[in-house]
Amino acid sequence: MKKLRLFTPGPTMVPEDVLLEMARPMEHHRTGWYREMHKELHENLQYLFQTTGTCLTFTGSGTSAMEACIVGCCPPGHKALVIENGKFAERWAKVCETFSIDHTALSIPWGRGAKASDISAALKADPKIDTVVVVHSETSTASVSDVEGIAKVTRERGALLLVDGITAVGAIPLRMDSWGIDTYVTGSQKALMLPPGLAFAAVGDRAWERIDSGKMPVLYNDLKAYRKSLETFDAPYTPAVSLVRGANVVLRGIKERGLESVWSETTTLARATRAAVVALGMKVFATDPVDSVTAICIPEGVDEAALRKTMRSRYGFQVAGGQGELKGNIIRFSHMGYVDAFDTLGVIAALELTLKGQGQSVTLGDGLTAAQAVFAEAAG
Amino acid sequence: MKKLRLFTPGPTMVPEDVLLEMARPMEHHRTGWYREMHKELHENLQYLFQTTGTCLTFTGSGTSAMEACIVGCCPPGHKALVIENGKFAERWAKVCETFSIDHTALSIPWGRGAKASDISAALKADPKIDTVVVVHSETSTASVSDVEGIAKVTRERGALLLVDGITAVGAIPLRMDSWGIDTYVTGSQKALMLPPGLAFAAVGDRAWERIDSGKMPVLYNDLKAYRKSLETFDAPYTPAVSLVRGANVVLRGIKERGLESVWSETTTLARATRAAVVALGMKVFATDPVDSVTAICIPEGVDEAALRKTMRSRYGFQVAGGQGELKGNIIRFSHMGYVDAFDTLGVIAALELTLKGQGQSVTLGDGLTAAQAVFAEAAG
Repeated sequence: MKKLRLFTPGPTMVPEDVLLEMARPMEHHRTGWYREMHKELHENLQYLFQTTGTCLTFTGSGTSAMEACIVGCCPPGHKALVIENGKFAERWAKVCETFSIDHTALSIPWGRGAKASDISAALKADPKIDTVVVVHSETSTASVSDVEGIAKVTRERGALLLVDGITAVGAIPLRMDSWGIDTYVTGSQKALMLPPGLAFAAVGDRAWERIDSGKMPVLYNDLKAYRKSLETFDAPYTPAVSLVRGANVVLRGIKERGLESVWSETTTLARATRAAVVALGMKVFATDPVDSVTAICIPEGVDEAALRKTMRSRYGFQVAGGQGELKGNIIRFSHMGYVDAFDTLGVIAALELTLKGQGQSVTLGDGLTAAQAVFAEAAG
Repeated sequence: MKKLRLFTPGPTMVPEDVLLEMARPMEHHRTGWYREMHKELHENLQYLFQTTGTCLTFTGSGTSAMEACIVGCCPPGHKALVIENGKFAERWAKVCETFSIDHTALSIPWGRGAKASDISAALKADPKIDTVVVVHSETSTASVSDVEGIAKVTRERGALLLVDGITAVGAIPLRMDSWGIDTYVTGSQKALMLPPGLAFAAVGDRAWERIDSGKMPVLYNDLKAYRKSLETFDAPYTPAVSLVRGANVVLRGIKERGLESVWSETTTLARATRAAVVALGMKVFATDPVDSVTAICIPEGVDEAALRKTMRSRYGFQVAGGQGELKGNIIRFSHMGYVDAFDTLGVIAALELTLKGQGQSVTLGDGLTAAQAVFAEAAG
């Protein structure tokens, strides 16, 4: 028997009751049934994002909703600062290029998170910047940016802050309104433990003011069309009904557990994994590691592709490799969604066994013991 | 006991084995497993569209893929003719406006399909037109356009033909390559009997030439990005893995039955429904009725909203009302996907009972008998 455990930072494992909810017979979306469901979804999303703002549901990947926010908030006459510290951060600069949005990119080393000081220096250097685009949790490097601090300096400047929170919300602390974030985006297949296919964008009043002030060439990803439909809890284009159905089941569960509990459980999984990595004589890649996903440096002499292959084919653990310039240099384990301490001990055990099998000098149990200590401490 | 039967022209009923396939545990998309599945999907889509061209899979509604085709094929210097004969046709003119695409709209009465002669007259009147946008099956009016004939005159002119086939492909005859269509789009929730969330665009060589010749502001809905990923059977952005999984199950089934059988079965359902409508003293709305969905005129004195409500709440049949200017004037029954003669007799029976209940002078069984005669004839 071999059980599959998905440890990739999205898609993540989907709870069985959510899979079954989505397998229920199809219903039509131009109905009171859908509008009721969408109304509940909206309330659930407001809780998730900790906002009283508008929460829009897109049929698409996270990229669709980020494109919608960047394009909507950057009509001609505005200038964006895009922080580049990983593969996803780079994509948002590409959105600006594609739509001829005036922007400047600030590159910081991969593995480091953006700090408030980075942003305030860049804002000082260019008085034209009135929009800041940042990735909260950069999935490609498993690093976290100080979005709370960045929001402070962005507000002081009177600029908008657009955040990619695709592997952040529902995993690490986020308080959209009290921090002062203007748009915040996520996808369904990360901490929300759903299949891919939905994206969510929370949009605040200051962002709407900007969006309403301009006109950009967007139809499918037009925030205004989504806002208009939301007035009656409809959707501008046919929504992914089954995924919306699953989303409410997940979000009800998160509400019941409480966001603070979810955040602290995620932190414990990440701390345990990092402790195991160190105990096995390996290194965490990020200098500012995020708690939603851990990137582990591949030691000299270890074949990364063979490592992942064995972890999957022999032990049933699917983990992610590196992307872009990090290909071959790191592996990544997710701590998001439907994953617990015992699954995490499992992936550490599989890592130990695979390293040993590749002839590395690891002492079996060292990683497990270190992780176990973290779990015991967290349990109090 | 009340069974629900979904007769809306999308979403349509999803077969139980497809629901269960999509409820299987989540898998990651950057894997050989996904690439194998995507490769099979591509072959299946080529069969569905009857093309050797490129078949792209979008995470989005049909609108996302239509936007992608129109925007990609109409860079500056080109001019589109958009045939407007219903709500969806109007949307494609809106895409042109949004992206500042030079275009002219040809309005023809709702309920009529576009003919080759309409197009050739419009092409003659404006030599600048080099792109024609037409809806194969206009879902809002349940009418069909002569896409085969239109393709002929479009080819003669050397113009591109972009077709919205959202409620056509997999229901009514389509031979993309032999007819000479350049792009053809559908969504997952119609004849493909899947939940909404995927859109498919088939793109031929002449379209690619045009697309490669220009540059338009698109990222999420960029055909070129999808084509590039398809080289390795990957996806540019996280795909809706579970829906793709379901798509192969559906398309294998369609292949096994054979497209000709699927088309002829759909025709039989439509003919039976139209016969029942006439037998009940009612009228089919469209002058060029399509076989994928039937729009029935609401007789004087019948409350359309109450009719639909009773059909749903009392008998479990969810049918669609009219959209836009047709709201309150028609009801629509789908003949697409996972629906057979016996379901169709059911919806006719429910219609008879509901009309009777509203005090209309219908003879119970007249509609059923007329439909039954069509089914008997088709069975040979």
